[in-house]
Amino acid sequence: MNPATAAASAAARSEAQALLGRLTKPAGSLGALEELAVRLAGIERRCPPVPWPGAVAVFAADHGVVASGVTPWPQEVTTQMVANIATGGAAISVLARQHGLRLVVVDVGVNAVVEPTDTLWVHKVRLGSDDLAVGPALSPTDVDAALVVGVDVATRLVSAGARCLLTGEMGIGNTTPAAAVIAAFSGRPAGDCVGRGTGIDDAMLVHKRGVVERALRRIPATASPAQVLAEVGGLEIVALAGYIGAAAKSGVPVVLDGVITLAGACAAEALWPGTVASCIAGHRSVEPGATVALEHLGLAPVIDLGMRLGEGSGAATAYPIVVSAARLLGEMATFDSAGVTEKE
Amino acid sequence: MNPATAAASAAARSEAQALLGRLTKPAGSLGALEELAVRLAGIERRCPPVPWPGAVAVFAADHGVVASGVTPWPQEVTTQMVANIATGGAAISVLARQHGLRLVVVDVGVNAVVEPTDTLWVHKVRLGSDDLAVGPALSPTDVDAALVVGVDVATRLVSAGARCLLTGEMGIGNTTPAAAVIAAFSGRPAGDCVGRGTGIDDAMLVHKRGVVERALRRIPATASPAQVLAEVGGLEIVALAGYIGAAAKSGVPVVLDGVITLAGACAAEALWPGTVASCIAGHRSVEPGATVALEHLGLAPVIDLGMRLGEGSGAATAYPIVVSAARLLGEMATFDSAGVTEKE
Repeated sequence: MNPATAAASAAARSEAQALLGRLTKPAGSLGALEELAVRLAGIERRCPPVPWPGAVAVFAADHGVVASGVTPWPQEVTTQMVANIATGGAAISVLARQHGLRLVVVDVGVNAVVEPTDTLWVHKVRLGSDDLAVGPALSPTDVDAALVVGVDVATRLVSAGARCLLTGEMGIGNTTPAAAVIAAFSGRPAGDCVGRGTGIDDAMLVHKRGVVERALRRIPATASPAQVLAEVGGLEIVALAGYIGAAAKSGVPVVLDGVITLAGACAAEALWPGTVASCIAGHRSVEPGATVALEHLGLAPVIDLGMRLGEGSGAATAYPIVVSAARLLGEMATFDSAGVTEKE
Repeated sequence: MNPATAAASAAARSEAQALLGRLTKPAGSLGALEELAVRLAGIERRCPPVPWPGAVAVFAADHGVVASGVTPWPQEVTTQMVANIATGGAAISVLARQHGLRLVVVDVGVNAVVEPTDTLWVHKVRLGSDDLAVGPALSPTDVDAALVVGVDVATRLVSAGARCLLTGEMGIGNTTPAAAVIAAFSGRPAGDCVGRGTGIDDAMLVHKRGVVERALRRIPATASPAQVLAEVGGLEIVALAGYIGAAAKSGVPVVLDGVITLAGACAAEALWPGTVASCIAGHRSVEPGATVALEHLGLAPVIDLGMRLGEGSGAATAYPIVVSAARLLGEMATFDSAGVTEKE
């Protein structure tokens, strides 16, 4: 952040904090909504902040690691769910309708031919990643290309008027690369980051943990963020990093979802330090890597409902609360304007 | 609940549970939203439930106990905030606008002449309660009258089309009677239930606790729920009990707010056992009596954001998540309808 931008952000935060003290309510009584309102003002560099209209991009890709037996779901479900999301039947589709969120699905690497539509953008880098259990998931060129897709999607949505970007994803097998990415960037052991994803048994969990541990051993201590992503990442995780970084640069708040989008946020923060200041943790997924990533990024989630669906569903469920924080700051009367007597 | 109603409720819950298993998502992956969807189906006795449009009633009253020094806020703030809520400047006004909630303020005992409007209903039982520090707060007749006000407001809102009722309140000093009511119905000591309300210092907190302890000693072990309310209640708390009970009887879910409305819910449950089955805890207020009441009622809150503003603000902040639970159940595609392959 350049000095002028940093100053504008600090000024907006101060203005928000001062305004909160004049609104018709006991000091601090809106709890976390007050911190959220101040954070939004700082991100948007204006007071009050206006984080709407919102848009959610669901980045979809396939993962070679499914060949190593880390999930009971067949890979074709990625393509089927991409269609389901785009045609309105998935959880994120329902939530986007509820909250007036623009929804786009971005094929950044699904292992099938996908026909583009107005809400299904095809920016396929390749037909899924390689199996990270046996070698690098992606080439350096793949990483660069997927980052560009994410940056372009964020830029396009912001240019079209979005003032809050929500993160989403779909990719059978993607809790495995997400756990690896979070472990690599946080320095925490694989065992803390690997979970049951969409629902695996004990034996598969042990195997999945071993896959991640072995893959992490290939990463040299001197690896750059891009090298980490090439070794153990996935195309939607890389694209999410670009999307989150670009949104942050343009002063638009980003609402993070669960463990996959948190992996993208860890990567974005490693690539462009300071990005996390523009992020809001929508929810706490039950996936253990999500809590590791939240701690690593220093973020407290808005809601904690035991969700683990992905797609952006946690971010979208939390979105109306993000809007509430901003609207309360912007629309409540002050003690003066409402003629309300203050506490003695 | 009569046997036919109970059977309809159980059937709707079963249907909701079965439908959740067919939706395009891993089993259980929506976490608490799934339990909430099943609960809503049971309350409304239909699947999917449709808890909208919603309405929030803010019951307002004054409290004689302010003369005993339990709050730093002057009593006239009740009347000022009633006007602020009705004219759109309060937190609950902003949240109601955001979520399309019908908002009515109900004067059930404000200590001032209040002019009725379309959104400000005057059903004044009397000009505030007596000081519970020195004797009964209300007469048995007052309690009956305030219960009727609450029942009538719920009935009127439901007749006009509301399919979810949110609870709200305004009354300077009302965390004192709320703490006493929760202590009386839960059997927990006053010390567990009394908190800092809108913000009091240590000395006032000790004094407030003593006021509640002494008042509770006047309640005989054989007291009826109505006698408890007369001794240590408040007009808005009693009206809330009637409102919550009537909503439950008509099969409409009730979203509870903070410590005051939870006191009303404890009273409603004591008056009409089973009422709590129709209640949803919107949030966990930081006021300690709120957690005591949630435990007593066996309710888990939807959100936990450190709020302590009252007015219905926590209930309204949680409301879109209640709607999400119902809409996800009602609008998501099934594996069959979307042509998505299930887990192996």
